[in-house]
Amino acid sequence: MTENGLRYFDDYLPGATYDCGSVSVDQAGIVSFAREFDPQPFHVDPEAAASGPYGGLIASGWHTAVLMMRQLVEHYVSAEASLGSPGLDEIRWPYPVRPGDTLRVRATVIEARRSLSKPDRGIVRTMAEAVNQDDRPVMRATAINFFRVRPVPGA
Amino acid sequence: MTENGLRYFDDYLPGATYDCGSVSVDQAGIVSFAREFDPQPFHVDPEAAASGPYGGLIASGWHTAVLMMRQLVEHYVSAEASLGSPGLDEIRWPYPVRPGDTLRVRATVIEARRSLSKPDRGIVRTMAEAVNQDDRPVMRATAINFFRVRPVPGA
Repeated sequence: MTENGLRYFDDYLPGATYDCGSVSVDQAGIVSFAREFDPQPFHVDPEAAASGPYGGLIASGWHTAVLMMRQLVEHYVSAEASLGSPGLDEIRWPYPVRPGDTLRVRATVIEARRSLSKPDRGIVRTMAEAVNQDDRPVMRATAINFFRVRPVPGA
Repeated sequence: MTENGLRYFDDYLPGATYDCGSVSVDQAGIVSFAREFDPQPFHVDPEAAASGPYGGLIASGWHTAVLMMRQLVEHYVSAEASLGSPGLDEIRWPYPVRPGDTLRVRATVIEARRSLSKPDRGIVRTMAEAVNQDDRPVMRATAINFFRVRPVPGA
């Protein structure tokens, strides 16, 4: 069960919003992630980035995404109930993430329905959002998760 | 310029498909990525995963995504032209990635249009896909990229 009391599909109620804590990013972390997975000049090379389209180094959007995911796994996705994810819709990075930023993550349940084909589970759609220390949105996405329904006692 | 001859926005023509090479994943890589960013039992714990929903360890979908991104940066996204990305639509993981899998990545231009507000660039929508060694689709997504248009000589 998460510290927010989320344990089974049945606990994810549309409209509920959960604070998923915050995470900070520094230049070394931005560069090392991007060298491995997204080695574009404005993610890996501070000098090239300074004269580039963002006027400085910015984090790969994928880096922002996985930092957000870590917060969601720790605060929102019940380990007991999680059956994985078929994907996400509409990932957006409205504002860049820069070295020194602190991102606060929150998750809002937007839809929860029982699976028609697999009665042991439900499908939850979540608006996941991250804002920086100035409250500017740096990422949002609609996540889709499969969660086990609460077991029926004695079943 | 990429080895596919992609240099500026003008080179991304709807309908064209590009092979972006392949990448292999092993259990150590799956576990170490997931420990840092997506520590769910079926990504980090081979024993728990064996009795879990996928009958074994599977890669985090985010891991698949960033491995694909690396291939796209190396083969498809022109470093000279790239001005970043506002996001992606419809990420899907139709089939799980398991230790030992080799993923082949390809990119198909689905739309390319000049920006109305910023004449120096165009917006390209790309269907990015990864298939495993059995040709099963493990990820697809519609990526959105901003690319510089070819400079006008003497301008």
